[in-house]
Amino acid sequence: MFTLPQEESRAPATGLGSASTRDSNYGDGLERERSRKPDQKLPEFCAVGDPAAMFSSNSSYLSSRGGIIKWFWDSAEEGYRTYHMDEYDEDKNPSGIINLGTSENKLCFDLLSRRLSQSDMLRVEPSLLQYPDWRGHLFLREEVARFLSFYCKSPAPLKPENVVVLNGCASLFSALATVLCEVGEAFLIPAPYYGAITQHVCLYGNVRLVCVHLDSEVTGLDTRPFQLTVEKLEMALQRAHSEGVKVKGLILINPHNPLGDIYSPGELRDYLEFAKRHELHVMVDEVYMLSVFEKSAAYCSVLSLEGLPDPQRTHVMWATSKDFGMSGLRFGTLYTENRDVATAVASLCRYHGLSGLVQYQMAQLLQDRDWINQVYLPENHARLKAAHTYVTGELRALGIPFLSGGAGFFIWVDLRKYLPEATFKEEMLLWRCFLDNKVLLSCGKTFECKEPGWFRLVFSDKAHRLCLGATDLGC
Amino acid sequence: MFTLPQEESRAPATGLGSASTRDSNYGDGLERERSRKPDQKLPEFCAVGDPAAMFSSNSSYLSSRGGIIKWFWDSAEEGYRTYHMDEYDEDKNPSGIINLGTSENKLCFDLLSRRLSQSDMLRVEPSLLQYPDWRGHLFLREEVARFLSFYCKSPAPLKPENVVVLNGCASLFSALATVLCEVGEAFLIPAPYYGAITQHVCLYGNVRLVCVHLDSEVTGLDTRPFQLTVEKLEMALQRAHSEGVKVKGLILINPHNPLGDIYSPGELRDYLEFAKRHELHVMVDEVYMLSVFEKSAAYCSVLSLEGLPDPQRTHVMWATSKDFGMSGLRFGTLYTENRDVATAVASLCRYHGLSGLVQYQMAQLLQDRDWINQVYLPENHARLKAAHTYVTGELRALGIPFLSGGAGFFIWVDLRKYLPEATFKEEMLLWRCFLDNKVLLSCGKTFECKEPGWFRLVFSDKAHRLCLGATDLGC
Repeated sequence: MFTLPQEESRAPATGLGSASTRDSNYGDGLERERSRKPDQKLPEFCAVGDPAAMFSSNSSYLSSRGGIIKWFWDSAEEGYRTYHMDEYDEDKNPSGIINLGTSENKLCFDLLSRRLSQSDMLRVEPSLLQYPDWRGHLFLREEVARFLSFYCKSPAPLKPENVVVLNGCASLFSALATVLCEVGEAFLIPAPYYGAITQHVCLYGNVRLVCVHLDSEVTGLDTRPFQLTVEKLEMALQRAHSEGVKVKGLILINPHNPLGDIYSPGELRDYLEFAKRHELHVMVDEVYMLSVFEKSAAYCSVLSLEGLPDPQRTHVMWATSKDFGMSGLRFGTLYTENRDVATAVASLCRYHGLSGLVQYQMAQLLQDRDWINQVYLPENHARLKAAHTYVTGELRALGIPFLSGGAGFFIWVDLRKYLPEATFKEEMLLWRCFLDNKVLLSCGKTFECKEPGWFRLVFSDKAHRLCLGATDLGC
Repeated sequence: MFTLPQEESRAPATGLGSASTRDSNYGDGLERERSRKPDQKLPEFCAVGDPAAMFSSNSSYLSSRGGIIKWFWDSAEEGYRTYHMDEYDEDKNPSGIINLGTSENKLCFDLLSRRLSQSDMLRVEPSLLQYPDWRGHLFLREEVARFLSFYCKSPAPLKPENVVVLNGCASLFSALATVLCEVGEAFLIPAPYYGAITQHVCLYGNVRLVCVHLDSEVTGLDTRPFQLTVEKLEMALQRAHSEGVKVKGLILINPHNPLGDIYSPGELRDYLEFAKRHELHVMVDEVYMLSVFEKSAAYCSVLSLEGLPDPQRTHVMWATSKDFGMSGLRFGTLYTENRDVATAVASLCRYHGLSGLVQYQMAQLLQDRDWINQVYLPENHARLKAAHTYVTGELRALGIPFLSGGAGFFIWVDLRKYLPEATFKEEMLLWRCFLDNKVLLSCGKTFECKEPGWFRLVFSDKAHRLCLGATDLGC
């Protein structure tokens, strides 16, 4: 229908730059749109209003920042669009592409569909059709506070006045970046990381990310691959400062995407103490907190900590997109004790509001503890576990190393041995080889991984699709 | 619940500046939040990144732009919050405040509630819960295109690929401003105008508005009060240029808020030709297009014109907030033939997306022509007309002059004779006098009207509330 431009805007035939604090952080990390031709140049980081450094647009109708914003859409060309032109369908296109790239949980639509179709979900009251409280209707914020108190195991009940509700965590990243940072200021983020955050903080806010690059090798004080330590945070912060980059905060993803890692309470506290020492805000992304499917894995929300080191600078996000398999529902929430931050984000909620009817539905869903605890969560975890067991079994059979912490929908797969050379160009060629063989994966560059050859493989799909995907992976 | 700061951030006791192209355009025009203490200073227009010109925040946690964003929330203190603390309720608070300030249509909740509660509205399919096409699901864009083709009387069928769907026109103003303008560039807008647009283009985009001030007096070539002419547009543009302000576009509101005016096809074409001569984008806000309740009023959508002067720079907005009385539903749409603009806005739709379930509901609603044409529109227009007749009758009885074009939910009321002096301070005192007497109105300053003493009175409410409001007005 909507024919998108086929050509990149003046894309020079240079390779991708290596990721460092100085290099571009413009990964095309959009969850569903994660491919790029290897010879396509990323725009350098630039401040809006700095035409010399600006990525050029080929449109005479757009502003320079409009050109960058459009570039992010256009750059998502190959992978996701190729998939959509040749999407696998059991009946209509059985030889189509299997999508193991998009982090969605497709295992529980039956449960969700039954619950969301119940008659208690359709309520139309005048107040739901009128202008909302932009922070979210009070009945919903009360429900979110109760929900988070329970599932995050908070030491004291969380308060509705500390909740702001909006249409997904993408919006939350955008709003928080804008109200916490000036143009060109930065957040620290351990890499690899869920790459869409790059655009979330940049497109409206023009805020950048400074990577804290983690290694796969276990050496020195590290006890596991890609381990985050306070020393690495300190070093990245000092390097950013020495390069004139002002760092205003730290982003933590827990459980981690794409690593599947879960931070221990001790680690969490260490990172938060580091942030407090440097007066850094911490944005904690906990969108996978209920998707911990390994019974042995002990998950700890930041909101469970007794005496947060710096509660005025700790801002926690959660959403239904992952834990309730509803990326298309667009429901996210902020919990922060900082009233200034909550108010400023609420002010931007005029642009991130969600329908009163959906707010009602979400309150109904979140309050239905019987269904959540006795139906949805046990079944969801069992299905995630089964799918995970199947895919890791296949990977083992293929002799492919991987990391997976028992949380999330993905496995972080080490395909370095298949690269003739350790370059991102080779990584992209391998990625395309999978696509040619009808499997869409996400390559490590998308997550700003500094080692070429890592891929994220999403396993939260139906058995027959996983089976086909695994077959094609072994090509 | 959420105790907002009681004090303004360093608000000096200076008067409001008069509105001109150089003066502040930071009106607190939020539809529901439109009051301000008269001794509160507006921040000067400033570019983000220009701390010297920046409005100061009293929060050490926010960036300077975060402080401005929070200021917009805080500044909405008196009127709307006073109303909410003492809201009229037939049973519980019969002596409460009557809200004639918020432009919502409260006349047809019965019809809407019946239609939206029908079983065809609750459909839960996997595709609706998965990541959406950020432009909007194709089935919805197809429906929007058919709907607009019919109700805008387009000479040829409108195309779904030219439609972008998002969560309301506030978001659309924000996204368009950002992708069309650099920081600090401007749109021309005839004043008075719906003041919330000021923040929509400024909060994220840091784009300013340049007022084309219109007069109530009919002199020279004007044939009606507050008439917009090409000469006035030309003069405002030249003045902006001479003051170093780069103007990128023109905003037209048709039917007009707060004037209720409807532009004739000839006028529309003149304004569009003016824009074309100067290569200006035109954002046309048509959110009241189906709320023309006077049978004699001939409304003409921009999309009905044969051969738009500059289709690549003409961008039309519509939403269900006004015409379907659903401000809380958050559904808006852009129609533009410019693919670059559509793509760039779609790229920002990651932050303005609406639930798949709501997209389904909206498609169901828009396709139900029998209900719209035979039930909703006739009844809505009849009720609007009756309420309008009642209120204008009361105004006439009170000897209060007013303007009203038979469209929209409001009457533009001339209360200048009640001001001891023609100042905005006196206007604010009169506004507060109404509030003390339990009527919330919107004063002209909120709309950047240059003549103190005009008020917008919303009449689209139930008879008993209008009756009480009219009684209190006559205090």
